[in-house]
Amino acid sequence: MKARIIVTLKTGVLDPQGKAIEAALKSFGIDGVEGVRQGKVFDVEVASPDAATAEAALKSACEKLLANTVVENYAIEIA
Amino acid sequence: MKARIIVTLKTGVLDPQGKAIEAALKSFGIDGVEGVRQGKVFDVEVASPDAATAEAALKSACEKLLANTVVENYAIEIA
Repeated sequence: MKARIIVTLKTGVLDPQGKAIEAALKSFGIDGVEGVRQGKVFDVEVASPDAATAEAALKSACEKLLANTVVENYAIEIA
Repeated sequence: MKARIIVTLKTGVLDPQGKAIEAALKSFGIDGVEGVRQGKVFDVEVASPDAATAEAALKSACEKLLANTVVENYAIEIA
């Protein structure tokens, strides 16, 4: 079973990397960019009998390792 | 206009970071994980009159800066 986990910074958390990308895009002449926030994506292959079991395992993975829940949100999409 | 860009490694490109995450998940006792590939996500706020203009600007951003198209694929989702 394939799943995609997207980890993004919570609203209000400063994102200097995103700011740097925004500035770089402007210097490349790309117009109209008003904000960039960078996050991480994990494409995970899980062997589970059903989607609920897979989601539970991935939730545990996010809480323990993949996301810092103090400053980051995560979203799990089971394909 | 909000857009999300997802940059992932092409199939066949080695992903040592993903392998390390997979090993770490196993050591945390999370069962059933058979593969992890890590990528990047960019949440971009674009000021554009329409979705087509926004998509063209973001495509240019991906080609010039956000993705290394030799080893990475990108996908643009306009919200």
